[in-house]
Amino acid sequence: MSNGDERCIGVFDSGIGGLTVVRELRRRLPHENIVYFGDTARVPYGIKSVQTVSRFAREDCDFLLRFDPKMIVVACNTVSAIALTELEDTLPIPIVGVVDPGARQAVLLAEGHTIAVIATEATISSDAYRKAMIKYQPTTRVIQKPCPLFVPLVEEGRRCEDAITRAVVHDYLDPIMRLDPRVLILGCTHYPLLKSAIAEAVGPGVKLVDSGEQTAATVVEKLRGRNTLNPGPDPGTLTCYVSDNPQRFKELGQRFLDHPVVDVTWVSQEQFLTHDVSTISV
Amino acid sequence: MSNGDERCIGVFDSGIGGLTVVRELRRRLPHENIVYFGDTARVPYGIKSVQTVSRFAREDCDFLLRFDPKMIVVACNTVSAIALTELEDTLPIPIVGVVDPGARQAVLLAEGHTIAVIATEATISSDAYRKAMIKYQPTTRVIQKPCPLFVPLVEEGRRCEDAITRAVVHDYLDPIMRLDPRVLILGCTHYPLLKSAIAEAVGPGVKLVDSGEQTAATVVEKLRGRNTLNPGPDPGTLTCYVSDNPQRFKELGQRFLDHPVVDVTWVSQEQFLTHDVSTISV
Repeated sequence: MSNGDERCIGVFDSGIGGLTVVRELRRRLPHENIVYFGDTARVPYGIKSVQTVSRFAREDCDFLLRFDPKMIVVACNTVSAIALTELEDTLPIPIVGVVDPGARQAVLLAEGHTIAVIATEATISSDAYRKAMIKYQPTTRVIQKPCPLFVPLVEEGRRCEDAITRAVVHDYLDPIMRLDPRVLILGCTHYPLLKSAIAEAVGPGVKLVDSGEQTAATVVEKLRGRNTLNPGPDPGTLTCYVSDNPQRFKELGQRFLDHPVVDVTWVSQEQFLTHDVSTISV
Repeated sequence: MSNGDERCIGVFDSGIGGLTVVRELRRRLPHENIVYFGDTARVPYGIKSVQTVSRFAREDCDFLLRFDPKMIVVACNTVSAIALTELEDTLPIPIVGVVDPGARQAVLLAEGHTIAVIATEATISSDAYRKAMIKYQPTTRVIQKPCPLFVPLVEEGRRCEDAITRAVVHDYLDPIMRLDPRVLILGCTHYPLLKSAIAEAVGPGVKLVDSGEQTAATVVEKLRGRNTLNPGPDPGTLTCYVSDNPQRFKELGQRFLDHPVVDVTWVSQEQFLTHDVSTISV
């Protein structure tokens, strides 16, 4: 039996939203080194086709594999919903998506009552949350609702108190509430930033499930199960790579990570598609 | 002197918005054949960096050049704002962007009064409209305002009468109106779909300039000046290529084109980046 594994955890997302998953990982795993890739040149994935999202996801994983990670976390609901099985089948290391952990927790909390899922168009169309929940509880009743304005609202920097934010949240959630759900899954990594506005709109009778939080819990479980936690004692590092606009990533990132985003490197398309990591490591 | 030119006009945009420019082109030039490319796999351009947008634009033009066009229309404000000069310097045929025609018309209509520009983040940051207007009238006073929620509102299918649309329009435009502009440039090809909501918010004292309309007028001028109009008599065709999601393009496209979008072909990344047009022509 080994004494842990100091290799990094690779995390990727279509853009910046996955930093909410990183935030949860760092809370639970302060000694892990994390390498994050945000595909900001091709963001968003949520309105794109299955073929395109699958190809992007394979390329994102190929990039992360250059850093020799012990695990890859797909901190993107769209990719988790559409391409996870394919990635699991081809990757040489364990991979964790955000859909299954959120779905499992929702079923536990719902105790047989209706569960609502809000997410991007692509995630909802994939039906992935419903399929995952039915695996755990075949009689689960599920309401699904795409909320395409939530991501641009968050990226524009609007807060939960903003009048437009509140109006949009009610516009999406009021019709759902008439169907009396007891659990609401935040099925997009941007949505935790709207949590207080969402909680206010649905009231105290509805439990919110943050898929990112549940994913971090699953990562801890899996690393512990394989005895591959980083034994420490040094604090873990966070190294970010983006395919576009590192400055915007830094500026916006702090809200998602709840901490300044310090180490961000731009990866050119040539660097991204070739296999020479030496040209970008700093 | 030749008797016109039957070759097509190439038009490209980051996605679907450029169809509002195509709509104006078809109104004025019913005999022209148009080949449209929408880069729906990488949309939106409006939040991406200058380098990335420039690279995408060169690739989009390379793709259109395979169809032997007599002119290329950049039906994308972001590309027109950021990369037009570079494209003009490298392309073997005339190229028309959407910024300059809109800017020229705005200066004419303003008669010395303040002009407001609304557009994507990238277009506003580029300062392209202000620079273009100052070229025509150095003393022009310009107010600029990014409206990042307008594109997702339109793409979600929300109409001008929708309560959220109206709230967002007022949220962006009310602060501008306090500065008393007399002309407002719709500096994004999606914005004409919000025209009636915008007109209602700014009132009858403000003239709206639709850059797409002005661009079509400029195309007519240039083709006529070179004696390269299509002499007819057949009605022109519209052939669309997209890098992702042809079905979504068809469904949404009708609202932008004011006509059903019939002929849409998906171009895979391999087809897009190689130079073999035979594999995609149908």
